[in-house]
Amino acid sequence: MKQFINPLESEWKSILKRPTFSFKELEPLVENVFSDVKAKGDTALYDYTLKFDKVSLNSFRVEESDFIEAEKNISPELKLAIKLAKNNIEVFHRAQQTQKVSLETQPGVLCWQEKRPIKKVGLYIPGGSAPLFSTLLMLAVPAQIAGCKEIILCTPPDENGSIPDVILYTAKLCGLTQIFKLGGIQAIAAMTFGTETIPEVYKIFGPGNQYVTVAKQIATQHQIAIDMPAGPSELLVVADRTANPAYIASDLLSQAEHGADSQVILVTTFYPLLELVKKEIDLQIKLLPRQEIAKQAIKNSRMVSFETNEETIQFINQYGPEHYIICMEEEQLYVDQIVNAGSVFIGNFTPESAGDYASGTNHTLPTNGYAKQYSGVNLDSFLKQMTFQKISKKGIQNIGPAIELMAEAEGLEAHKNAVSIRLKDLKK
Amino acid sequence: MKQFINPLESEWKSILKRPTFSFKELEPLVENVFSDVKAKGDTALYDYTLKFDKVSLNSFRVEESDFIEAEKNISPELKLAIKLAKNNIEVFHRAQQTQKVSLETQPGVLCWQEKRPIKKVGLYIPGGSAPLFSTLLMLAVPAQIAGCKEIILCTPPDENGSIPDVILYTAKLCGLTQIFKLGGIQAIAAMTFGTETIPEVYKIFGPGNQYVTVAKQIATQHQIAIDMPAGPSELLVVADRTANPAYIASDLLSQAEHGADSQVILVTTFYPLLELVKKEIDLQIKLLPRQEIAKQAIKNSRMVSFETNEETIQFINQYGPEHYIICMEEEQLYVDQIVNAGSVFIGNFTPESAGDYASGTNHTLPTNGYAKQYSGVNLDSFLKQMTFQKISKKGIQNIGPAIELMAEAEGLEAHKNAVSIRLKDLKK
Repeated sequence: MKQFINPLESEWKSILKRPTFSFKELEPLVENVFSDVKAKGDTALYDYTLKFDKVSLNSFRVEESDFIEAEKNISPELKLAIKLAKNNIEVFHRAQQTQKVSLETQPGVLCWQEKRPIKKVGLYIPGGSAPLFSTLLMLAVPAQIAGCKEIILCTPPDENGSIPDVILYTAKLCGLTQIFKLGGIQAIAAMTFGTETIPEVYKIFGPGNQYVTVAKQIATQHQIAIDMPAGPSELLVVADRTANPAYIASDLLSQAEHGADSQVILVTTFYPLLELVKKEIDLQIKLLPRQEIAKQAIKNSRMVSFETNEETIQFINQYGPEHYIICMEEEQLYVDQIVNAGSVFIGNFTPESAGDYASGTNHTLPTNGYAKQYSGVNLDSFLKQMTFQKISKKGIQNIGPAIELMAEAEGLEAHKNAVSIRLKDLKK
Repeated sequence: MKQFINPLESEWKSILKRPTFSFKELEPLVENVFSDVKAKGDTALYDYTLKFDKVSLNSFRVEESDFIEAEKNISPELKLAIKLAKNNIEVFHRAQQTQKVSLETQPGVLCWQEKRPIKKVGLYIPGGSAPLFSTLLMLAVPAQIAGCKEIILCTPPDENGSIPDVILYTAKLCGLTQIFKLGGIQAIAAMTFGTETIPEVYKIFGPGNQYVTVAKQIATQHQIAIDMPAGPSELLVVADRTANPAYIASDLLSQAEHGADSQVILVTTFYPLLELVKKEIDLQIKLLPRQEIAKQAIKNSRMVSFETNEETIQFINQYGPEHYIICMEEEQLYVDQIVNAGSVFIGNFTPESAGDYASGTNHTLPTNGYAKQYSGVNLDSFLKQMTFQKISKKGIQNIGPAIELMAEAEGLEAHKNAVSIRLKDLKK
């Protein structure tokens, strides 16, 4: 990890530079798959599953018997752990429900705002070595609380045509019924256009590799919304002498094991901490099964020390970390002044892992600096806000003349006339 | 307007087809302007302003003296009208403020969600024949309530280098101070990258022509968020024998005058209404200054009658109108069952114009079918939701074992270790 002591503000931009990546070269491939799936439906899906996932399926749909089989293979301890996590996520997202906002802005002018669920949503869970059932909890639980009518899950089959048991168990636990063994670009394309088997959806959620990332981008050109733009995962820890170097190292490494492109940053106002944490990283990294990945990520990461809280906070806000751990004596200051961050972890006993799995907050968060303008996934991600207005005769008499004047000033005579024609009748 | 009596469901898709439009061919031009602005800053802005807006400026910034001059030229009546509208918009958007959501998901595991403002936002108001000061109200008022620190306004100068007085007056009234005479692609590029004069922003709001639409799309490839995807404006009216044909015609025409590509749709369960409204349209359209535009839009529009409420509602939800007027005896049914709509106008005395200007609801709404998955602009559009968690020693002992099990099952050993290392210390 590169160390920077009291860097000048003019250097921050280069210190905080994220790995840039562009998948422009994948676009032609993705667009091909999209047009095939649009034109040929299921047939294209079977072909691409054979081509990319190396398996020939007879059906994409997971059957009831698959769930029953899967459940048998999950240990009671893991089941309890998943239920505990699900319960906390449920409690936290249920608390995000809001009442409708309703008021008379003027006598006779009743306006209200209500949230209604997005009817059809698609969840994507990647395959590969690690079955991300935690991500499934993070997406399926709020989708259910929001009341989305159709919740589709696509996740790729392995070479035997199976989906990991723990994904099936979690899906069932969350009440999902429409689960498809379908991955990659073809899954995103199927949910975009709909096929004989796969229903089309209005919004697609979930992580994925570079192909899925590009596919989700392309989906947005076909009237589909997506949860948020993708980027490598990242963690920034701010710590001082009250922090525990071994804990910090464990947190930085938990982020680093995600991928070689993960970013981890340590910022401190207590500069000896840099060496202490470095030593701990060197010790702990050797014990990790994914140490090769972690080493790559650590190599690209940064340690920075500042002398003042002011500079430190400004630096953190300029970065806008996805995950932000605060282990500072003056923790309240750091909580109050953070403007750009996805999820915030406070104190020595709040590792990022807690939010990744079980505290109840959502782990689908804006990365790559998008914390400056995007929220993480939350209950509202599955809802739309709609507005309503009901105006009485008295009400239109109250605001009508103002509308007439404004419409006229904007040169929109028909807008004016829609009011005038009503006001005229009311004068009779 | 084409009429359809009891169309079969299989025909709905073609009846409800929106004008498709693709601006792919504008992308090279837009990308050129973007790279020029990125490379040359203000110099490029001056050049493009001369090229596209035919005016040579010495400065983009609107000065205090410009505001004072502008205010003198607005009639007292229009000032009062704008103030009334602003007040209603303010009251309605202020009511959308929420408290932080905070709870212990388990003993010792405190989680909360807070909204914090997007620090830097850019508002774009197009120029041209109609000075859209109403849109400025719709964007600046919630931006101020949200507490956005920097609110930039860009709007193109006319050939004399001026901005309409009513735009300046409204901007000042909303407390804006950073206003720039800058339009089109170059304005969006400037707010994306920042130049010597124009600050960069994190999110860009506001309507525009096809160049601005493409520029906003391109901006999203440079870490900028935008309010929502653009499309032609549209209105769907559902009405029965209790509706007033002249009022309906006036509403349809108010939408039609926006542009030749505007869509207006009338749906009814009382089929004689189709002819009655058609006659009224023919009468009223002749009196409109923008009748040529309205005629085009009306030509592409649809009148549909159904026999049942059920079919009617299903048809409306399939369309997902931006604006939705309900003039039905059974209005509550139509309110309760609408799932996809931007803003809803209820009853004979609630013309769309009311929401366009002064009822208090926002008029920046999802069009082109995006009401299925997007909200209109509202207070939350200027905020981000962030989550926080603070876990005590007791708390991590409560949820730690579950996290360890889940991390292990996902093959993420470092995630597990971040918990184990803490639990081990607590056992000592």
